[in-house]
Amino acid sequence: MKKCELLYEGKAKKVYTTEDPELLIVDYKDDATAFNGLKKGTILGKGAINNRVTNHLMKLLEKNGVPTHLVEEISDRETVVKKVTIVPLEVIVRNIAAGSLAKRLGLEEGYKMKRTVLEYCYKDDALGDPMVNEYHIMAMEYCTKEELDLIASYSLKVNEVLTDYLKDLGIELIDFKLEFGKTSDGTIVLADEISPDTCRFWDSKTHEKLDKDRFRRDLGGVEDAYHEIMKRLLGE
Amino acid sequence: MKKCELLYEGKAKKVYTTEDPELLIVDYKDDATAFNGLKKGTILGKGAINNRVTNHLMKLLEKNGVPTHLVEEISDRETVVKKVTIVPLEVIVRNIAAGSLAKRLGLEEGYKMKRTVLEYCYKDDALGDPMVNEYHIMAMEYCTKEELDLIASYSLKVNEVLTDYLKDLGIELIDFKLEFGKTSDGTIVLADEISPDTCRFWDSKTHEKLDKDRFRRDLGGVEDAYHEIMKRLLGE
Ligand SMILES: Nc1ncnc2c1ncn2[C@@H]1O[C@H](COP(=O)(O)OP(=O)(O)O)[C@@H](O)[C@H]1O
Ligand SMILES: Nc1ncnc2c1ncn2[C@@H]1O[C@H](COP(=O)(O)OP(=O)(O)O)[C@@H](O)[C@H]1O
Ligand SMILES: [Mg+2]
Ligand SMILES: [Mg+2]
Repeated sequence: MKKCELLYEGKAKKVYTTEDPELLIVDYKDDATAFNGLKKGTILGKGAINNRVTNHLMKLLEKNGVPTHLVEEISDRETVVKKVTIVPLEVIVRNIAAGSLAKRLGLEEGYKMKRTVLEYCYKDDALGDPMVNEYHIMAMEYCTKEELDLIASYSLKVNEVLTDYLKDLGIELIDFKLEFGKTSDGTIVLADEISPDTCRFWDSKTHEKLDKDRFRRDLGGVEDAYHEIMKRLLGE
Repeated sequence: MKKCELLYEGKAKKVYTTEDPELLIVDYKDDATAFNGLKKGTILGKGAINNRVTNHLMKLLEKNGVPTHLVEEISDRETVVKKVTIVPLEVIVRNIAAGSLAKRLGLEEGYKMKRTVLEYCYKDDALGDPMVNEYHIMAMEYCTKEELDLIASYSLKVNEVLTDYLKDLGIELIDFKLEFGKTSDGTIVLADEISPDTCRFWDSKTHEKLDKDRFRRDLGGVEDAYHEIMKRLLGE
């Protein structure tokens, strides 16, 4: 499988067409951005780590009944995925209050929610990915009710599977962002990535942050945190 | 029925205890605020108009199966209401995109939503009344699932009844804000007010704004708009 044309270059990945119209190649970059692109930088080795971590977790999710876009890892940084039409929603799953939610609701970072919280943001960089609810989603036809119900139930399943898996590795899953897409036959699958860029991972004992918050908040040790996650998940 | 102690002075109303512990007197002020209190002013005659318009609409809603806190109008500006524990949510009902929603989703003001949209904001001035969804409401225990379902269904009913009623008066109901409360026996009732302060009313033909947006946006003719609403609703 080889790259044909660059279809899209995003903030963290490049997406290429292939000879198969149903397949794409995702190429993970070391570029890091935060605050809707306002902060820019590089995290050395991030591309390879996020590629491998994403594929590792997607395989685990497939085994547990969550369909994903994953087809095959073809190099350190490159993976063949099913081409999907992305549902224009970022699904945020929160177990512990952190980041924007803690600020918005006046909660201390680390406050354990009484239930898992799902949030939806309309994926639109120009609008700053505004938060929307189910009524907005239906009224604006971002997806159908049936699709949204499936997306919500997959998201909660992803949370269950990953929370349990990571706990055994001494990692607390604070929150994370998912994207879903529709394949050519209309099937909803988990797409995009699951990595320290898109999850908050805290060390279970020390509560040390092992994710992109180290970059966002200039905490130092950014590369070390990404490597630590890869080591715990993939043993290397 | 007479006022005992001032229980609470808000931005638009004063609330007094009475000799009956289950009843309060609400006293409507001419004070106007916008943008979470940042903009301040006076709208002459507003208190009396909002008192009378609120009671008029609450009577109509009671007749149509929506329980309210209304007990009795006792003067131009004063009404006896059932004392409730306010559910700390502002329920926003939207038929047409306007104000913050239009801005947030990049829609033109006046865009007709494909379905009615409900939004919930956590009532907390210090936090700026942040938008929340059903997951936040359950996780933070702002109310129970059963209460929220009832609040949502009453809100949609209020929208139906008011939209139809106002249409005959040449007024388009764009959006509005509701508050609900729990009486001492746990019954959920519509509380607070329904007035040009809390609704967007547009003239059906000219699309002229007949509500607090005239004050928020310095459009002039603020008092005239409030009087026009009172005239169309109460014939005076
Ligand atoms: N399987 C897929 N098919 C099509 N597009 C995808 C797939 N998986 C992810 N994408 C999209 O490809 C882009 C990945 O690049 P990224 O750098 O994350 O972009 P962005 O800056 O928009 O977040 C995203 O827009 C994402 O929604
Ligand atoms: N029936 C009621 N019982 C108790 N409180 C009420 C009732 N109806 C409305 N309220 C509350 O009384 C206050 C009314 O004053 P207002 O000027 O609107 O306050 P605010 O500045 O908080 O909006 C609001 O906080 C509202 O939630
Ligand atoms: Mg992305
Ligand atoms: Mg008020």
